[in-house]
Amino acid sequence: MIELKLASVAERLEGFEETIVFKLIDRAQFKTNAPVYAPGRSGFAGAGNKSLFELRLRYQERMDAKFGRFYVPEERAFTDRLPKAQRSMDLPETGLRCGDIGSIDLTAAILTAYKDLLPRICVKGVDKGNFGSSVEHDIYALQAISRRVHYGALYVAECKFRDDSAKYRRLIEAKDVKALLSLLTRKEVEDAIIARVRDKVAYAQARVNRRVRVVLDPHAVVGFYRDYIIPLTKKGEVAYLLNRKI
Amino acid sequence: MIELKLASVAERLEGFEETIVFKLIDRAQFKTNAPVYAPGRSGFAGAGNKSLFELRLRYQERMDAKFGRFYVPEERAFTDRLPKAQRSMDLPETGLRCGDIGSIDLTAAILTAYKDLLPRICVKGVDKGNFGSSVEHDIYALQAISRRVHYGALYVAECKFRDDSAKYRRLIEAKDVKALLSLLTRKEVEDAIIARVRDKVAYAQARVNRRVRVVLDPHAVVGFYRDYIIPLTKKGEVAYLLNRKI
Repeated sequence: MIELKLASVAERLEGFEETIVFKLIDRAQFKTNAPVYAPGRSGFAGAGNKSLFELRLRYQERMDAKFGRFYVPEERAFTDRLPKAQRSMDLPETGLRCGDIGSIDLTAAILTAYKDLLPRICVKGVDKGNFGSSVEHDIYALQAISRRVHYGALYVAECKFRDDSAKYRRLIEAKDVKALLSLLTRKEVEDAIIARVRDKVAYAQARVNRRVRVVLDPHAVVGFYRDYIIPLTKKGEVAYLLNRKI
Repeated sequence: MIELKLASVAERLEGFEETIVFKLIDRAQFKTNAPVYAPGRSGFAGAGNKSLFELRLRYQERMDAKFGRFYVPEERAFTDRLPKAQRSMDLPETGLRCGDIGSIDLTAAILTAYKDLLPRICVKGVDKGNFGSSVEHDIYALQAISRRVHYGALYVAECKFRDDSAKYRRLIEAKDVKALLSLLTRKEVEDAIIARVRDKVAYAQARVNRRVRVVLDPHAVVGFYRDYIIPLTKKGEVAYLLNRKI
């Protein structure tokens, strides 16, 4: 049984920060590699108009689906028409109370935000012979970001609901999105997250040899958290609450 | 064309260190998860006696093979009977002079060393519902380690040969493994690598909240570099030289 206390959920979200930071640092070692996202330039036989990035994401998620990744509530696929899991799994009881958890889906917005982030963390250009590694790291980063956003959306919302269910129930029944967003928002927590992420990006690279490694820009990551990760998580929280069985 | 200068190759190897450290830190967030490596306990339909780890590695490498990963000289598969690449790629000229580059293969030793490392970096136990993520991180870590070892084996050996080809040619012709190893070894360089890796592990985690994240033990990583990564790279260098067209 997952512990549905806001403090534990917040700690888990905090733990995801390093993972996201590390994966962005790794991606930043490759150039922007625009051809990788260009339709019809994958070099893949019979891939039609798909980009190398789209192909890799689809292959990765087909494999992940077979291994059961998308049975975990906070995992959300970016692609569709995925195969069923071939694995029987023993998953913990989540305590979530949502009819259609799959409907809380921020993947499209995450993908747009991520592609917007890339030119701010990668050197412009192409890495000949490294397109495959470059898209691999895109996908690892995207999966880590998506896990953080959806985990927050589901579990933060559920915990906050439990802590003040009368008030939430009223706003949910009134479908008052604006008031829900306001009730969910704690500016001082958001500021603390942003300050912590800035620190982590800096410290993780404190001993970096700049001749050897590209340094991930803390401002870019801070902006990404402030403008995308935090607001998308809250958007997901609202979606969860509106879908919650009250 | 890859620049075949020892200084640039050493810088590239240095750049791999962060990647390895980050991937080990990520893996250390999961417990040892022994059932994942146990034969016949994958929960996978029709997987026979394979472990979840073996299955995931095989699926991952089948996908990677289709995307052309193993056309890159320093990429080496841990599994066999892989499909052909479906992608046409434009790879840079390597300058390597080896008849059968695939024969320089340290994957078996890397896998053994890695499994030996796990109990030293992970908390003993199982993460219910997280076996899939746990093996994923194993594979990312293994691929990063393997890339580092094989890159070093091939390119360091080639650069050192070029810098002193008369001497190397003589030892290669005499098949004098011991003398080759000794000529390849520079203790002060190895000590500097180890000190640098220790620092990187510490700094990367300087701002970690220990209630939220498991801290990767710098000693364990230092031991892994000293006892495995460095010696296996040198073993690969010798193998490369003995296979080099002189």
